[in-house]
Amino acid sequence: MHALKTLAELNELPREDFVASLGDVFEKAAWIAEAALAARPFATVAALHDTMMHVVRDASTERQLAFLRDHPELGTRRAGADPMTEASKAEQGSLGLDRLSDPEFARFAQLNAAYRQRFGFPFIICVRRHTRDSIFAQFERRTHNGADAELAAALEEIGFITRLRLVAKIEGPGKPKTTGRLSTHALDITCGRPAAGVEIALYEIGTSAHGLLVKARTNADGRTDSPLIADQPLRIGTYELEFKVGDYFAGSGSARSNPSFLDVVPVRFSIAEPEGHYHVPLLVTPWSYIAYRGS
Amino acid sequence: MHALKTLAELNELPREDFVASLGDVFEKAAWIAEAALAARPFATVAALHDTMMHVVRDASTERQLAFLRDHPELGTRRAGADPMTEASKAEQGSLGLDRLSDPEFARFAQLNAAYRQRFGFPFIICVRRHTRDSIFAQFERRTHNGADAELAAALEEIGFITRLRLVAKIEGPGKPKTTGRLSTHALDITCGRPAAGVEIALYEIGTSAHGLLVKARTNADGRTDSPLIADQPLRIGTYELEFKVGDYFAGSGSARSNPSFLDVVPVRFSIAEPEGHYHVPLLVTPWSYIAYRGS
Amino acid sequence: MHALKTLAELNELPREDFVASLGDVFEKAAWIAEAALAARPFATVAALHDTMMHVVRDASTERQLAFLRDHPELGTRRAGADPMTEASKAEQGSLGLDRLSDPEFARFAQLNAAYRQRFGFPFIICVRRHTRDSIFAQFERRTHNGADAELAAALEEIGFITRLRLVAKIEGPGKPKTTGRLSTHALDITCGRPAAGVEIALYEIGTSAHGLLVKARTNADGRTDSPLIADQPLRIGTYELEFKVGDYFAGSGSARSNPSFLDVVPVRFSIAEPEGHYHVPLLVTPWSYIAYRGS
Amino acid sequence: MHALKTLAELNELPREDFVASLGDVFEKAAWIAEAALAARPFATVAALHDTMMHVVRDASTERQLAFLRDHPELGTRRAGADPMTEASKAEQGSLGLDRLSDPEFARFAQLNAAYRQRFGFPFIICVRRHTRDSIFAQFERRTHNGADAELAAALEEIGFITRLRLVAKIEGPGKPKTTGRLSTHALDITCGRPAAGVEIALYEIGTSAHGLLVKARTNADGRTDSPLIADQPLRIGTYELEFKVGDYFAGSGSARSNPSFLDVVPVRFSIAEPEGHYHVPLLVTPWSYIAYRGS
Repeated sequence: MHALKTLAELNELPREDFVASLGDVFEKAAWIAEAALAARPFATVAALHDTMMHVVRDASTERQLAFLRDHPELGTRRAGADPMTEASKAEQGSLGLDRLSDPEFARFAQLNAAYRQRFGFPFIICVRRHTRDSIFAQFERRTHNGADAELAAALEEIGFITRLRLVAKIEGPGKPKTTGRLSTHALDITCGRPAAGVEIALYEIGTSAHGLLVKARTNADGRTDSPLIADQPLRIGTYELEFKVGDYFAGSGSARSNPSFLDVVPVRFSIAEPEGHYHVPLLVTPWSYIAYRGS
Repeated sequence: MHALKTLAELNELPREDFVASLGDVFEKAAWIAEAALAARPFATVAALHDTMMHVVRDASTERQLAFLRDHPELGTRRAGADPMTEASKAEQGSLGLDRLSDPEFARFAQLNAAYRQRFGFPFIICVRRHTRDSIFAQFERRTHNGADAELAAALEEIGFITRLRLVAKIEGPGKPKTTGRLSTHALDITCGRPAAGVEIALYEIGTSAHGLLVKARTNADGRTDSPLIADQPLRIGTYELEFKVGDYFAGSGSARSNPSFLDVVPVRFSIAEPEGHYHVPLLVTPWSYIAYRGS
Repeated sequence: MHALKTLAELNELPREDFVASLGDVFEKAAWIAEAALAARPFATVAALHDTMMHVVRDASTERQLAFLRDHPELGTRRAGADPMTEASKAEQGSLGLDRLSDPEFARFAQLNAAYRQRFGFPFIICVRRHTRDSIFAQFERRTHNGADAELAAALEEIGFITRLRLVAKIEGPGKPKTTGRLSTHALDITCGRPAAGVEIALYEIGTSAHGLLVKARTNADGRTDSPLIADQPLRIGTYELEFKVGDYFAGSGSARSNPSFLDVVPVRFSIAEPEGHYHVPLLVTPWSYIAYRGS
Repeated sequence: MHALKTLAELNELPREDFVASLGDVFEKAAWIAEAALAARPFATVAALHDTMMHVVRDASTERQLAFLRDHPELGTRRAGADPMTEASKAEQGSLGLDRLSDPEFARFAQLNAAYRQRFGFPFIICVRRHTRDSIFAQFERRTHNGADAELAAALEEIGFITRLRLVAKIEGPGKPKTTGRLSTHALDITCGRPAAGVEIALYEIGTSAHGLLVKARTNADGRTDSPLIADQPLRIGTYELEFKVGDYFAGSGSARSNPSFLDVVPVRFSIAEPEGHYHVPLLVTPWSYIAYRGS
């Protein structure tokens, strides 16, 4: 892996080094970095990324299609030939797409074949913004697109993918924040105070889900010391936050039954905006609760 | 099975017929019905039951222990010998205690052995007031009782069991209502109206749970046409009510994301009072909800 | 006042007595009762009312206008001449329109003059469906109507007025229920039980409001023994329900501050549908509450 | 008024200047500043205040009583003689205690007389921590104290008063923050977003209340740009926050009636901890709301 560079360094690098540094941000398409070179210096990473995306969007449809065709298929277990970039491998690996079960593998194979037959290039999606469930959902939905709409959709995904890759290669000033944040807050409305010490678990749920993502405990302010997820895209998908309020109220002297009416409170919700801030608080008594998307 | 009789008929029956009719309400203990005979006529079934329970409570400890010893063990798969009453079979069968998995069978066997060794009679519990999980929990808890406390506990369970049996044998006036009721109500607080047409499912959950208990759909008043459970003891245990609010709001024009923030809303709660009324409403928008024990 | 009659009696009365009985349901317009006579017998009071309203709607515009002109003005303090029907007096008296303050009297006088100049007949509104505030609001709004729209509006109000008058004259079967209902329910969500013994007061509020309408106390079910308002139109307007939860929680052992965070909880809302059912519950802890239009 | 000084300057001042600077922090009791002098340098303002309070607490009861007797009475309109310190005037003026109505004046006069007769010194209370209502309530409550308890209560109030005075005289590092904060947050739970642009008004209510305290409008985050009250003691008393949600939802396309069910939502609450943070959010739809003490 190349060492991280600052934007200032990139602005000064000789041509070959610049291209070597950024050539594989766009999958096997060093020509994009080369074409972007002329616009240096870049004031921000966002400006650099915009320029590179303009190169892609201004290219001929033929060149765009060739570029798209050079992307790897999702969810394959191919040995050897036709290697992905390191970035692609890491992205697919983050969802376990490199170690699918047989039925999942078969489903991907079928979707890949149908998609490629229809559009002539592999299905491209910014894996880091999705759960497996939403990838399957997008795959099936987009296979019904018209050719123009799908070309646009694929390039939009290229934008998401390459922005994340670019940000990962650069350090220092001018680097945009990668947004995406999930947080919570537990409030004990029997006493108007933060519910401190509540055990919280976040699960991804769904037909092919990852299960437990994170465990935490609320602090004196009823929040977790750090957000449940922060500074990365939230994967589109369905989640369940579980609050162990039974244990919390066991120590509080509140009126409870045995077993207590509420023990583990599950709050199930879906994320639709990977770059958004999802704040999902709980206001709770031993007999009632309010869950909502807050801010 | 004997035909249902009215209380008036029972009050008039010849001695042998009265005893034949009610003799097995108390497991293999026709002497209890016989002793109760003198107190006829009974104004209500509750009065009849109270009289029979007094016979038991007034008996010598020896006779009480002999009576308790004549009860079947829970969760056995014995063939042939030492048959249960029909009532016991039906009660145990209602929880699947007659078709346990091997680990469950082993756990019961161990608990039964420990309990019998300590107290000299089998563990008695009103099965119809419990889930398997709460039976295991009670079993373990009560095995640590002292002898007097446990004798009292067993007789209290006898009271629960025989009251239900008695009520099941009698028809017509003077018969008490068997209480126990679980109901719900869905209110759409984006428009201040009942949420009509919401699919609802009730699950028993727990380590050895029965799964789906009932499905229903809310009517124009946001309620189900009949309570989810009614006129029978609610089994002590943990439940999950699921409300398909995603489908409901899909037709409503409300502001939603894709996927929608809320789709299936699970409300998990435990029941502690089998004869109680649990009303568990949901006030809901596409982005928030309030769940509580209502009335 | 004529004695109440049953629908069966009305169906059998001689012509003159029928007209005498119903002649003043429509202000000084016995011709309407006379014309309705031919359609006897009426199966329901609603059918009788519909028939009478059809007589009005089928009359010539001239006759309709003459009929409307025979109505009293609202909010006058005229002595002697041009008397209202008893019904009109009672209706206007129910809002205190017969004992206005000087500024209110002046405002009515100005509105009456402007309205009569524009339309040639007095402003007609079903007083029993309105508070003073909503009468003023309707008065000002309707004065800007076109002639046709306002004639239709006046006849719709005639329909509301005469339906209530007719129902008040008839007893026995076939009589429609006058709907309109305001109820409440207080639930203590610190313990999942009805909040019993909570003092409740209902106020009409607004620039010229009547003040306290009713006081009540919640019973063991957290409801008032009878609805706050029932079986009569709810006056369109703004209300405040006050719940004395401070006194309630003072006896409960809940965690409270001194003075308590919540003492009297005001819930302010407006009624827009006089014939509707407004159920306005409160779910409450000493530190939080939920108020909503329920069902 | 003396110019603000830093703690460093106070630590270095000649004796007379130090006493001149701080002599009237304790009402007409320069001996307290003088006695504190020996403990210089002070690391923080809190340490300086603690030292001065120790001087008072360590003084003989006679000297304490003489010190208390030198305080002004509350709510008098005396001309001329026996002037208050500037600080006392400003504090009493902040509650309008220098311009009482005749009945209020009479009530204070009666309370002052009864109190002075019982304890021999005037009633002392940190006015800036109270509304008029809570002053009256404290006055009546404390008049029933025993002599020792009341001496302790008066000295505790002296601590509150002098801490605020001291902080007001000093600038720069080492100065403690004066806490006390009231904030709010409006969330539109029909769409899971902050309710922006909601007009909010905060009123002090009560039998002799000041009325409107502040108006504000929620920003894009559903909060006010600055807290409703900050960095000063919150006066113990009863308040009403009013949220104009009718206007807010008028622009939102939500299902509403005419007039809308909710227009101005009043949230009435009491403050018991002047130095606390009261966060009072509103979660709202056009037909429901949740108000609570948050964090």
